[in-house]
Amino acid sequence: MAKRTPVYVAIMAGGGGTRFWPVSREKRPKQMLPIFSRRSMIQETVERIHPLAPPDNTFIITTRSQAEEIQGEVPAIPKSNILVEPVGRNTAPCLCLAALNIQKLNPEAVMVVLPADHYIANRKGFLQTLRAATVFAAQHDFLLTLGLRPTGPETGYGYIQKGEFFGQIKGTNVFRTQSFREKPTRQKARSYLRQGNFLWNSGMFIWKVGVFLQAAEKFLPQLYEEMLTIKKIIGTRREKRVLEKVYARCQPISVDYGIMEKAQNVAMIEGQFHWDDVGSWSALWNIRSKDQKGNAYVLGKPNGRGKILAVDSSGCLIRAEKKLIAVLGMKDTVVVEGGDALLVCPRERSQEVRGVLEELKKKGWKEYL
Amino acid sequence: MAKRTPVYVAIMAGGGGTRFWPVSREKRPKQMLPIFSRRSMIQETVERIHPLAPPDNTFIITTRSQAEEIQGEVPAIPKSNILVEPVGRNTAPCLCLAALNIQKLNPEAVMVVLPADHYIANRKGFLQTLRAATVFAAQHDFLLTLGLRPTGPETGYGYIQKGEFFGQIKGTNVFRTQSFREKPTRQKARSYLRQGNFLWNSGMFIWKVGVFLQAAEKFLPQLYEEMLTIKKIIGTRREKRVLEKVYARCQPISVDYGIMEKAQNVAMIEGQFHWDDVGSWSALWNIRSKDQKGNAYVLGKPNGRGKILAVDSSGCLIRAEKKLIAVLGMKDTVVVEGGDALLVCPRERSQEVRGVLEELKKKGWKEYL
Repeated sequence: MAKRTPVYVAIMAGGGGTRFWPVSREKRPKQMLPIFSRRSMIQETVERIHPLAPPDNTFIITTRSQAEEIQGEVPAIPKSNILVEPVGRNTAPCLCLAALNIQKLNPEAVMVVLPADHYIANRKGFLQTLRAATVFAAQHDFLLTLGLRPTGPETGYGYIQKGEFFGQIKGTNVFRTQSFREKPTRQKARSYLRQGNFLWNSGMFIWKVGVFLQAAEKFLPQLYEEMLTIKKIIGTRREKRVLEKVYARCQPISVDYGIMEKAQNVAMIEGQFHWDDVGSWSALWNIRSKDQKGNAYVLGKPNGRGKILAVDSSGCLIRAEKKLIAVLGMKDTVVVEGGDALLVCPRERSQEVRGVLEELKKKGWKEYL
Repeated sequence: MAKRTPVYVAIMAGGGGTRFWPVSREKRPKQMLPIFSRRSMIQETVERIHPLAPPDNTFIITTRSQAEEIQGEVPAIPKSNILVEPVGRNTAPCLCLAALNIQKLNPEAVMVVLPADHYIANRKGFLQTLRAATVFAAQHDFLLTLGLRPTGPETGYGYIQKGEFFGQIKGTNVFRTQSFREKPTRQKARSYLRQGNFLWNSGMFIWKVGVFLQAAEKFLPQLYEEMLTIKKIIGTRREKRVLEKVYARCQPISVDYGIMEKAQNVAMIEGQFHWDDVGSWSALWNIRSKDQKGNAYVLGKPNGRGKILAVDSSGCLIRAEKKLIAVLGMKDTVVVEGGDALLVCPRERSQEVRGVLEELKKKGWKEYL
């Protein structure tokens, strides 16, 4: 390419936080937390993509209740690039809103869609894949999705069935997509793995804004029409009120189901990096480095008073914020200090933390949610 | 008796605190802690014996580092009744010091010796036994020890072998003692239990001060002689310096080994109450009331913010001070919040907490000891 591709990034940061309780809370979801390092996931996401798109080209879509704190986490992002959805309506409306905002700045833009709360081990590979993807998207009128080679029969992810080989771009394979599959049963996940032509659906997308909005017009015409009324008033005083009206009317629908599964011009690029959406304390244990006995230590606050001591214990995930946490003779246990609460559970049951939150609601102890 | 027995109490409160870490600390041993209720053990000990001896008749023997805090815990006790040992020399010197102080106030005194950190479930039975014991001691020139019928083959207690039946006093049996036994092996403890004539040694004693000091003179003549130099200067400005000199010279020796095992005029009264020296978190779990699944909850601070939530868990001991402690899917586990530290361990290993303290020392984290 003679011309440099104008890359814009849309980071989806609207999710609530239950799976990392007590560190994540209703008002402090996963993306705002320093889960993998001492920086929040949203900070890491913004900085990871920085070589492809500077802060001026980076948009974050979030909720009213999180907007201010997000702005504080990533102050380099212009305030007008923080897009607030009045209510959550799944990913299709969210990405239409982002696409319209980006299109207004640059109708030629290639838009990269990233979730705010995923773990990526290999930043170089990540950037290499996305560079290839943006070049591909600039050259072809395709909706590009990013697939990752499964490392196990995960039941927590959606899968994409590879179609025919499309070609290589900057050393990275691109395929047609044959089908999208919801989170499978364990048995199905095993069969996907055996068949070898199923990749994990990362929820990352790459496309020209024009191509995406065309697809939205075709497959979600009602939503698209509603959204168009926003386009004219972006940046005006009327924006908030109009957005509220539009969102009140529109049905929640995912971009996978509403567009990707229906469109013909869909392709998949294969990610060259290790990825994990880290959906539980147990998943965090999986990706952390560990001591000789398999204990993973997390110190929750930079320069905090948190300390950890594991005596005759193995396979534990221990997170300390302010206290010394001492475990003695424990096995495969999660011990997590987060603010005014502490969770202790077997590692393999950490995804059941929702049950704790339900009990808290029943008891009326809402201050801990 | 026509004459009312003048009863004085000597409470031994010099012990250090490791077994209830992180709630107990070097400078905050078990007797200062609200372990069973929201009041400290020393407060409970003083108040439990109150119907037998008012605060003016109650002495507490402790260390320099604990004296001030103890005074704060039991302000009704006259300051001159808090006896400070310069260093710990086991129970024989400690009880000589107390006896000399009590003798000075009342040479006819019957002295009741109580440890400050024991659990007694049945106050009425306790007072009934001790009333009988003081009456017996007033009538007979005996050293009376208090034995308790074992409820299991405990290896953490010493045992007393019953001798012949001596008589009943106020409905309570008194026996000669045949022998004193150190903490036994599990096998020996089982055999004691089978034989049926062994009782737990509670470390409580009842005697006339004169009878005790006579025995000390006979069996520990050197110690007794040293101690006599104290008698004259009790309450004077020279007391502290003389005490330091005497204690520097005297050998540590227990009253059981130094006197009780050797004297002929020893008897044992059988306690009519449930007693436990509660030497570990596991022992605390044993005596606490529990929910339907066998979880015991301890809220560490009166009106504190501590809260406890156990979901699908059983057999746990959970103590909260300031945090909400949530356990999910745990079994037979101790989770204890105490100040700036937290302990998690299997209930059956809670007596190994000393190992944690050793690791803390190795790491140089002395602020947690």
